[in-house]
Amino acid sequence: MMYEIDETHDQNRRSWVASANRAGADFPIQNLPLGVFRLGGGRPRAGIAIGDMILDLPAALAAGLLEGDAALAVLAAADGRLNALLALGPGPRRALRRQAAALLDADGAAGRLAQAQASSLLHAAAECELLLPVEVRNYTDFYAGIHHARAAGALMMPDNPLPPNYKWVPIAYHGRASSVRVSGGEIRRPQGQRRPVGQAAAPAFGPCERLDLELELGMLMGAGNPLGEPVPIGAAHEQVAGYCLLNDWSARDVQFWEMVPLGPFLGKNFSTTISPWVVTPEALAPFRCPAMPRPDGDPAPLAYLHDAADQGRGGMDIGLAVWLSTEKMRVAGAAAQLIIHSNARHLYWTPAQMVAHHTSGGCNLVPGDLIGSGTISGPTRAELSSLLELTAGGTDPVALPNGERRTWLEDGDEITFTARCEREGFAGIGFGRCSGRIVAS
Amino acid sequence: MMYEIDETHDQNRRSWVASANRAGADFPIQNLPLGVFRLGGGRPRAGIAIGDMILDLPAALAAGLLEGDAALAVLAAADGRLNALLALGPGPRRALRRQAAALLDADGAAGRLAQAQASSLLHAAAECELLLPVEVRNYTDFYAGIHHARAAGALMMPDNPLPPNYKWVPIAYHGRASSVRVSGGEIRRPQGQRRPVGQAAAPAFGPCERLDLELELGMLMGAGNPLGEPVPIGAAHEQVAGYCLLNDWSARDVQFWEMVPLGPFLGKNFSTTISPWVVTPEALAPFRCPAMPRPDGDPAPLAYLHDAADQGRGGMDIGLAVWLSTEKMRVAGAAAQLIIHSNARHLYWTPAQMVAHHTSGGCNLVPGDLIGSGTISGPTRAELSSLLELTAGGTDPVALPNGERRTWLEDGDEITFTARCEREGFAGIGFGRCSGRIVAS
Repeated sequence: MMYEIDETHDQNRRSWVASANRAGADFPIQNLPLGVFRLGGGRPRAGIAIGDMILDLPAALAAGLLEGDAALAVLAAADGRLNALLALGPGPRRALRRQAAALLDADGAAGRLAQAQASSLLHAAAECELLLPVEVRNYTDFYAGIHHARAAGALMMPDNPLPPNYKWVPIAYHGRASSVRVSGGEIRRPQGQRRPVGQAAAPAFGPCERLDLELELGMLMGAGNPLGEPVPIGAAHEQVAGYCLLNDWSARDVQFWEMVPLGPFLGKNFSTTISPWVVTPEALAPFRCPAMPRPDGDPAPLAYLHDAADQGRGGMDIGLAVWLSTEKMRVAGAAAQLIIHSNARHLYWTPAQMVAHHTSGGCNLVPGDLIGSGTISGPTRAELSSLLELTAGGTDPVALPNGERRTWLEDGDEITFTARCEREGFAGIGFGRCSGRIVAS
Repeated sequence: MMYEIDETHDQNRRSWVASANRAGADFPIQNLPLGVFRLGGGRPRAGIAIGDMILDLPAALAAGLLEGDAALAVLAAADGRLNALLALGPGPRRALRRQAAALLDADGAAGRLAQAQASSLLHAAAECELLLPVEVRNYTDFYAGIHHARAAGALMMPDNPLPPNYKWVPIAYHGRASSVRVSGGEIRRPQGQRRPVGQAAAPAFGPCERLDLELELGMLMGAGNPLGEPVPIGAAHEQVAGYCLLNDWSARDVQFWEMVPLGPFLGKNFSTTISPWVVTPEALAPFRCPAMPRPDGDPAPLAYLHDAADQGRGGMDIGLAVWLSTEKMRVAGAAAQLIIHSNARHLYWTPAQMVAHHTSGGCNLVPGDLIGSGTISGPTRAELSSLLELTAGGTDPVALPNGERRTWLEDGDEITFTARCEREGFAGIGFGRCSGRIVAS
């Protein structure tokens, strides 16, 4: 049912919101991502992105334009966060999508009625403050990008880069929920304890010298499961209530000194950035694809991770891009530079496999949990989705068109992730922006 | 100020609640730990343990027996959890302690007034359901027990058991907040993927075969800090608003197969148990002690982890005990058996050092965060505070008086932690119980 194509995916639909119909728009009427915004210091409100505008969901409800399950969904977000809406599961989310599509449609009675009230229903996104869409309850970060795991592992163990459990276990660690922030903020360069790898000198405390990005997809959980009751693989996809972009900022020098034996801690928990718009599983339905084919010789997933439907359609064809804008580039009026592109197809494990694994021992997921995919690198150099990989551990700097070079992130650097899904016969959709700018510690 | 001794610590004080005055009582009038309870399915209410009874704080407030900052503290817990109360910091917490002590005192006007209303102010603890005292927002587990780190490390690397960062970095990892539960529940044996260490066979999925306990102290955070603003070591102790016992249940077979390279995940997140009563820093003041002496040759803590007052009084002299009751023992009417005893003195890092380190890169703590100390083993065999250590990695079973033996926990086993502080010239205090019973998966 999650992969179902219906009238909301019709590529011929047009919105009366003109900016939604522009070629290459991230938020055409076929996308309708959910988010939370605020107007001039007012209360947080749930909204749907449409072109350059935001549909104000409480306003649409107050105007009597939403009914039934869609009205229920909007009421669930009355506290200015999407946790309870996402907890309602697919039914109300789909009802809201269908009714919002009708309201924003250039054709039909519902669209005409809404258009007549456009001034009270729509806000220019540029005039709104976009907020964290959920109260992030728990944050887990997977390691499902096999090219990343191999490239990062090769820097430490060239002969045996993948850990022996990699093709059996969807490896993950618990991250820090309190420091997840929405796109657009400043990232303060962390101070930390670090010692260059392989040196015997005593460690010192000071500003991170190897600040990095990691290109990931974020998944927001829906209803969740009771403690002690695993989610079977066949039902696991229904737990994912939305997708966003996620930058797992990493202080490599701090991380590599601290992480043996219990994993990354301060090297990661100073900040995580996610994009503000929650792309629904419904909007993604046309862009599902087979799970990443397992190379010959790889073991089949164990039974608790194997589902034929998931193997056939549980992957995602999402093009991902990383843009760098330095202080010098901005002063010169130069546009941000594309430094990495990749695709979510390169994930070794599907979202459903991550959910099934996460709950397989009984761990309970709750609405508003955030799950990161892990860094999504691809097999080529341009698809290496962190500076750690792209610069071969800091030995081969990236050259920028203006003559600057980057080994690690410098103060003033702004990193922006974008993502786009395209498929013949369907309207393309985008994820908006996930950005952060480094400031001195 | 945190270490201040005042009239609330006077060992000669007696309560009109007779059970509080019994020798060896966990909750004499000098303790006054905070908790949340429920009567017969009613709403959660904040309370203070006194002997075998609970002082009903909303009832005391409604009776006009609390005023000023103490009243504020009780109002902050009106939602049935202590997060907002702990967030108020030391002032209101101390005001509540002083006024509650006066109300429960066998001498004085306040005590007589309260005693006259005892039937509406007190509930028998045995008739109350004790709840999780806070909504656990984020959970971090340290590794500050050096004897544990050495004993656990020796099982894998006999020649070099401590990781090279151990004496520099207060090592920690993020745990799972959603699966923290209060004492008294059932712990479902997790299923998981595991492969015996050193074997080449494919892993299999099934019930955990190496289920273990870990004896830890839990710390609940108070006001917290904004993202990007580290808490200096000199102010770090003020962030700890309370202490409890914590059992970091561990599925060793799952953990050891999954944990390289990103740390423990499913091996830990199926359940964590904490005791219901939050022992305040004020109650602990008489039992502070010097930080664990660093053996000759160990490096001094780096400046961000060093504070003279903390080195002098930041340690804790808390005796800890682990009791095992098997199904067979209960059928035979036998009492639980003491299998481990230890002391919080054996922690290599103080709570203040853990807080300072946790925030040193800018990570924000929030009220209701839970921080575990790590397993508190001591230098002798009886002080090895997990079965992993006590049985030398499962090779040397523990013999019980009834002839049973335990390598790992079996279904029906009930593990209970207790803790007690004693010092000449002061009334001893206890932590209550932190228990859980294993049930089949």
